[in-house]
Amino acid sequence: VRDAVKPLLAPSALPTGYTLAGLRCGISNKPGKKDIALFYSSRPAVGAAVFTKNLVKAAPVLVSRRHVLSSKTFRGVLINSGCANACTGPRGLKASRESLKWLSAGLGVRKEQLLVASTGVIGRQLPLPPLRAGVRRLAAAVRRGGPGSPKDAVEAIMTTDIRPKAARFAFPWQGRTVTVWGCAKGAGMIHPDMVTMLFVVLTDAGLPRAALREALAWAADRSFNRLSVDGDTSTNDTVFLLDNGAPDDSPALRKTFRSALQQVCLSLARQIAADGEGARRVAWIFVEGARTEAEAKKLAAVVATSPLVKTALHGADPNWGRVVAALGRGGVPFDPDRVEVRFGDMVVFRRGQPTDFSAKAAHKLLDKDEVTVRVDLGRGKAWSNYVTCDFSKEYVSINADYTT
Amino acid sequence: VRDAVKPLLAPSALPTGYTLAGLRCGISNKPGKKDIALFYSSRPAVGAAVFTKNLVKAAPVLVSRRHVLSSKTFRGVLINSGCANACTGPRGLKASRESLKWLSAGLGVRKEQLLVASTGVIGRQLPLPPLRAGVRRLAAAVRRGGPGSPKDAVEAIMTTDIRPKAARFAFPWQGRTVTVWGCAKGAGMIHPDMVTMLFVVLTDAGLPRAALREALAWAADRSFNRLSVDGDTSTNDTVFLLDNGAPDDSPALRKTFRSALQQVCLSLARQIAADGEGARRVAWIFVEGARTEAEAKKLAAVVATSPLVKTALHGADPNWGRVVAALGRGGVPFDPDRVEVRFGDMVVFRRGQPTDFSAKAAHKLLDKDEVTVRVDLGRGKAWSNYVTCDFSKEYVSINADYTT
Repeated sequence: VRDAVKPLLAPSALPTGYTLAGLRCGISNKPGKKDIALFYSSRPAVGAAVFTKNLVKAAPVLVSRRHVLSSKTFRGVLINSGCANACTGPRGLKASRESLKWLSAGLGVRKEQLLVASTGVIGRQLPLPPLRAGVRRLAAAVRRGGPGSPKDAVEAIMTTDIRPKAARFAFPWQGRTVTVWGCAKGAGMIHPDMVTMLFVVLTDAGLPRAALREALAWAADRSFNRLSVDGDTSTNDTVFLLDNGAPDDSPALRKTFRSALQQVCLSLARQIAADGEGARRVAWIFVEGARTEAEAKKLAAVVATSPLVKTALHGADPNWGRVVAALGRGGVPFDPDRVEVRFGDMVVFRRGQPTDFSAKAAHKLLDKDEVTVRVDLGRGKAWSNYVTCDFSKEYVSINADYTT
Repeated sequence: VRDAVKPLLAPSALPTGYTLAGLRCGISNKPGKKDIALFYSSRPAVGAAVFTKNLVKAAPVLVSRRHVLSSKTFRGVLINSGCANACTGPRGLKASRESLKWLSAGLGVRKEQLLVASTGVIGRQLPLPPLRAGVRRLAAAVRRGGPGSPKDAVEAIMTTDIRPKAARFAFPWQGRTVTVWGCAKGAGMIHPDMVTMLFVVLTDAGLPRAALREALAWAADRSFNRLSVDGDTSTNDTVFLLDNGAPDDSPALRKTFRSALQQVCLSLARQIAADGEGARRVAWIFVEGARTEAEAKKLAAVVATSPLVKTALHGADPNWGRVVAALGRGGVPFDPDRVEVRFGDMVVFRRGQPTDFSAKAAHKLLDKDEVTVRVDLGRGKAWSNYVTCDFSKEYVSINADYTT
């Protein structure tokens, strides 16, 4: 997987007109860890964003949300790791605002044209002197022009991530190439909880703002909103989409772009699941034969977030019983006797009972990097899916001592 | 804890007129593990029960539910471990019915006067020859009379439990002693999921059926329904309450009995939390200052079941940020600036920010067998609580290889 991502971190992978930089300024406690990144557009870019639905929102979320509402174009996204700047009160809010003021001066753009995100420990204040120095050095780096270093930027936004995450989809369009490039940070969790997910997607498509927003909402619902690391729960979750292309309002472009954006977001979501803290494999949970897509999604989420299902996946244990029991508490009134459960293509449960499947063969089927669990409810034609990861001992080691 | 339970497993701890027996018949795969138990009343007893709300119900749940509805008095409860007899179709249903038929013949009572529960692996059929032999030996054992062996019975219903769980509350009543004795199996989980919880509570109070039912519903809502190992999710969860006392319909007895029953159930719930698979400590989560008890309970449940809160508790990490973030996704529109969070008596979060607390002192406060997390929402006077356990690496080892 790491090797597959490598070419996507090369400067040539970026859409035109963007410069990326990442470096260490000293916010993070991890020695040597790069901790601040800038995603800069040399031309004004149209933007769209999705923010966390958590009631408790971090300072950078409040600042960026305001800028997204008040500004028509954007020039850059500043992201630090090592400190979430959440639950930090007025002082934290001021720190996020100041950082954009410094960046605005360094780049010679309006501060409302800048967006900001943070990830790391909650409740700690951002240390201002290193932050200020970092912002200055980033501004100086992007002024040099060219694509800069996507690799440095992506590494600088990582926290508990083991692997950098990037995805790219390019398509020819009326004599030019439209590129959609995205990166993300976040690691798969046993439950939608509070490890921050950040996505930055850059393109040169040239769509108008309304089309960009519509495409992001559509792609979100088909990618990171179906990840068991749900986007709506941390204090800091943020998705930014910038488009610095020459204006082009063709409906055909909109449609192709939407698919490209979904591909990129889905690939990033999959990489997050695969990079689950201590995770060994990615699992796709399909719930089919439902009355509505909503009930299918609800049950897929229950199965995908069940700790007992996820620990069974870790051991490649063909424990269909845990799948069925998770379905049973999902609040959808299906008939257990009409349910079918498959691991890969092997039917393991049918008509209220396990089939006569070989446990050994089923184990082998599940002992892979990427596995599929399919449920057919037998009550309709709607379906939905979720991507999740298995759940290992390492998860606990990572999370038991996160702040101490 | 084990020592505290010991006297409660002595024959003298039981209310009058009950005989308990437990033995190994060979249903469980664990060598030497006792796997079948009988709770017998020498007199007809009035009964009440609570069953799982999971849509997928095990065969013994279906059989017992029917008996509870059709019969006015009961003589015994048969419980096996090692096989849940869930998702086993018509054959499983027949096995549960047969076992009660054999027991009915062995005891000379109507089979509708018998109740049954199972716990263990889902989807396996009960092996009939050992089951039949076990039932016969149990019937023979209780026919000898006397209290029998509560210890054997309690051990026989255990699965992943490390410690046997029992509780007792006795009070003087008009020249006699009313005893409420209960035992349980179940181990704390990181999430309401599907480890079965079984409770058997025996008393000689003498209350009418309606009073018994009302008391059980009341106590349930104040004990195991506030355990993060929730009673409504496994395929097999069952609570049985038997009362073989001479009829006494005094309102004062009802009231005292209700409290006694709550004490016993709460103690059993606490023991289940403490026996969490790999758990190191019990945590009481209080949410106060809410508008309604329902919203307080909802938020207490979110905090009590958050894997990140539970891993932090494991490391005695004073990570109030995880508590606040969990609250924020609970769906209650509180004002984060009015929230106060305390570990024990130490305020760690107030007015949207952490206080200047000592991390070392807070760690010490949390590094105990039993800890308290208190949240004040600052928006009303209602409150609720939940009991939970920390979440350790051992949990994963236990659950990753449960069937294989």
